[in-house]
Amino acid sequence: MAEGIEVKKSDDITSWYNQVVIKSEMADFSAIKGFAVYRPYGYEMWERSVSYLDSKFKSVGVKNAYFPLLIPESILSKEKEHIKGFNPEVAWVTMGGDTKLDERLAIRPTSETIMYDSYSKWIKSYRDLPLLINQWNTMVRWETKETRLFLRGREVLWQEGHCVFRTEEEADKNARDILQFYKQFMEDMLAVPVLIGKKSESEKFAGAAITYTAEAILPNNFMSQAATSHNLGQNFSKPFDIKFLNEKNEFEYPYQTSWGISARSLGVMVLIHGDDKGLILSPHLAPYQVVIIPIIKDEKEKIIGYCSEVYSRLSEVGIRVILDSREEYSPGWKLNQWDLKGIPIKLQIGKREYETKTLSLKVRFNNEVTTLNYTDIPTKINEKLEDIHKNMLEKTREDSLRRIKNVKSKDEFVKDIKENLFVVKSAWCGLPECEEKIKEATGATSRLIPLEKEELLDKNCVFCGKEAKVNAYFAKSY
Amino acid sequence: MAEGIEVKKSDDITSWYNQVVIKSEMADFSAIKGFAVYRPYGYEMWERSVSYLDSKFKSVGVKNAYFPLLIPESILSKEKEHIKGFNPEVAWVTMGGDTKLDERLAIRPTSETIMYDSYSKWIKSYRDLPLLINQWNTMVRWETKETRLFLRGREVLWQEGHCVFRTEEEADKNARDILQFYKQFMEDMLAVPVLIGKKSESEKFAGAAITYTAEAILPNNFMSQAATSHNLGQNFSKPFDIKFLNEKNEFEYPYQTSWGISARSLGVMVLIHGDDKGLILSPHLAPYQVVIIPIIKDEKEKIIGYCSEVYSRLSEVGIRVILDSREEYSPGWKLNQWDLKGIPIKLQIGKREYETKTLSLKVRFNNEVTTLNYTDIPTKINEKLEDIHKNMLEKTREDSLRRIKNVKSKDEFVKDIKENLFVVKSAWCGLPECEEKIKEATGATSRLIPLEKEELLDKNCVFCGKEAKVNAYFAKSY
Repeated sequence: MAEGIEVKKSDDITSWYNQVVIKSEMADFSAIKGFAVYRPYGYEMWERSVSYLDSKFKSVGVKNAYFPLLIPESILSKEKEHIKGFNPEVAWVTMGGDTKLDERLAIRPTSETIMYDSYSKWIKSYRDLPLLINQWNTMVRWETKETRLFLRGREVLWQEGHCVFRTEEEADKNARDILQFYKQFMEDMLAVPVLIGKKSESEKFAGAAITYTAEAILPNNFMSQAATSHNLGQNFSKPFDIKFLNEKNEFEYPYQTSWGISARSLGVMVLIHGDDKGLILSPHLAPYQVVIIPIIKDEKEKIIGYCSEVYSRLSEVGIRVILDSREEYSPGWKLNQWDLKGIPIKLQIGKREYETKTLSLKVRFNNEVTTLNYTDIPTKINEKLEDIHKNMLEKTREDSLRRIKNVKSKDEFVKDIKENLFVVKSAWCGLPECEEKIKEATGATSRLIPLEKEELLDKNCVFCGKEAKVNAYFAKSY
Repeated sequence: MAEGIEVKKSDDITSWYNQVVIKSEMADFSAIKGFAVYRPYGYEMWERSVSYLDSKFKSVGVKNAYFPLLIPESILSKEKEHIKGFNPEVAWVTMGGDTKLDERLAIRPTSETIMYDSYSKWIKSYRDLPLLINQWNTMVRWETKETRLFLRGREVLWQEGHCVFRTEEEADKNARDILQFYKQFMEDMLAVPVLIGKKSESEKFAGAAITYTAEAILPNNFMSQAATSHNLGQNFSKPFDIKFLNEKNEFEYPYQTSWGISARSLGVMVLIHGDDKGLILSPHLAPYQVVIIPIIKDEKEKIIGYCSEVYSRLSEVGIRVILDSREEYSPGWKLNQWDLKGIPIKLQIGKREYETKTLSLKVRFNNEVTTLNYTDIPTKINEKLEDIHKNMLEKTREDSLRRIKNVKSKDEFVKDIKENLFVVKSAWCGLPECEEKIKEATGATSRLIPLEKEELLDKNCVFCGKEAKVNAYFAKSY
């Protein structure tokens, strides 16, 4: 393992972030520009995320499948807004072995088009609906901006769900239900509170009728998109000729949704919870919840024996625990390393603990120190793990809310966003031309419009002065 | 769901296979030539396979990770035998958005090269070994032969394990241990017995020191490779400059393995177990182990009530069960459809069963019919499921062994293989030039050489007459 973090989070969050992700061994750069390696420690967090989300999706009848990695250009181009949105960032395969291909093949930037081509063959009758399919895979988008591990890469680990319904209501309900799953995941697994809402006309997914989004507020007053869920209306069923015979034997176009969350959510988690010593992980996500570090001066065998006993007991009750009994490293070095890796609870066990059958416990998140008795396993340790998660979530929620400022004045609006002083909430007209000008003036766009009808913060748009239609959150995107 | 299978397995196994896989909704062709869609029914079998294998790998300390999909040509070319083996079938990305790339990027045909580039950064000391990493992903090889769903496609669902050890012995043990896991998987999950052994010099993996293989014997006397496990020696550590400092502070090159199994194993399972009615699945693999089909003439509510009771009881005890109460289809149609999908046990429940609290049970695999009492759930149903698996495996094992013939005469050797009369086992010289000529004469190559030293079947090579070195199995590859 590597040395500690050499930059403060408050001084330079970007360098700090890179060091934390690399030195904790979550991820690494690879031999190919813009493509990350997800190392076992980071990948295990993704596996735990997949497992949580997968069972949520399956609970509403969604099944997994796998569709081709490559999409012929003619298929990708069928929906006009969609291809306009994705064309600039597609990686193209043009050679198979030594042979130049007749048609260019896109590496999937997203799979609407290749999947709906199959859907049009499979869906014939109302009996075939709803069709609820998800796939876990990676997608490739040729980012030209600087890439960041987890947060912005040319290849992204994600899932994409693609469902088909008889009615618009069912489709919209599905898109919103999934958005709730994403929110639950961010909060239950990552201890990251998110705001949920709709995207503006300019910011919605290429080809969607409505895009729902879950966004987190970062310590630097930027916002970061954690997941999106799209109501596609009939925008794809028509060009892809997906039709079903209803009970009256008439053809209808169905309504569709697509929705996705990626490993970027883990990057957001790092940004929000980490500190100058490294990662801080929720016990719900952490590959190891507890690390045992033996402190040995004398009576080595007895202390190691007690450590093993504690280890076995914790494993037995289902707690993810590691005993770090490596002799080539000092206890101090080990404490720093496991802090860097963000393990929620450290147990230091030396002569005193062995003799009194106790555990000296230190919490990574708030540095709280306690002594427990051996017999407090499992009850008090489990309580402690749950408390840590709850406290991490609550503290972050309070912090996020403090960063939001309701703004009515245009000057204040521009200054607060441009200088990253706050996440700004304002009354807004919602017009694409106004959003374009906001972007020029501040470097930011609208992040989301609340789902529920709210009282408008002002009668007029904070920026252009036209009639306000919605409240919206504005911040730069990280 | 589609109509039944329209060709007999014994008449035309290839057409039969395609119909079974497509009509059972395991997989489908896609809009892109040579690329399959793994539909939910087939993908669920793959998920069950992944889950079985993943826990085997993890039991010996292997961790999952994810490495880039794309490999720069310069990296792919570092090991000379390797690039020679894969170059003809690589799909090349040459454009990112509208920009022509400076260097061509290969879609991973296998990940030795991109992974070992990272390994050379990560491995510094003997403390970093063994390094045990696996990834579940897809690989792309630009097949020019006719593709077949599951069995031969341009994109393949698989896992690739890549481990690094201090010594040759550890590496070889790892390669053999994993081979045993593959054998266990084929037998425990798919009820497909396999032969295990080594590949010949000509047939081994491009860049390997030794390739171990697990192969199944098919009903048409072809053989099919289910999985391979490679001892790579130092063939990759040297060109990739993977070095570690040993305890004496000297640099050494470590020894490596790579090993993989793909969804092709499911295709082999279909070929071996299916019949003229469709799929036959082992209860260990089947997405549903039991289907309940209500037979309703009168007393509909009571019968449906009893069906639901049986359904709940079976679910409760962990049996994967589906109740097919769709009213728009007849019981006869349903029986055929679930036979096509290979469900191990069908329960028909009508008035008689409701009145006597019994279950009329029919086994897909051998058409056995029994009546059980409701109170036989779970014991007798679980026994039945285990019996089905065991009987499927045993029957197939006997059938496979009957297909092997020990041959000493060259003429018999050529005829038996060329005309697919038997899988042939013979004494062999093992020389590449002899294998080349066998291929010309028979259309087949050696499939494997037994792992354990055996008494030679003859002093001389069955084909070229030179000194025999090993016994080997010969058959065409399906």
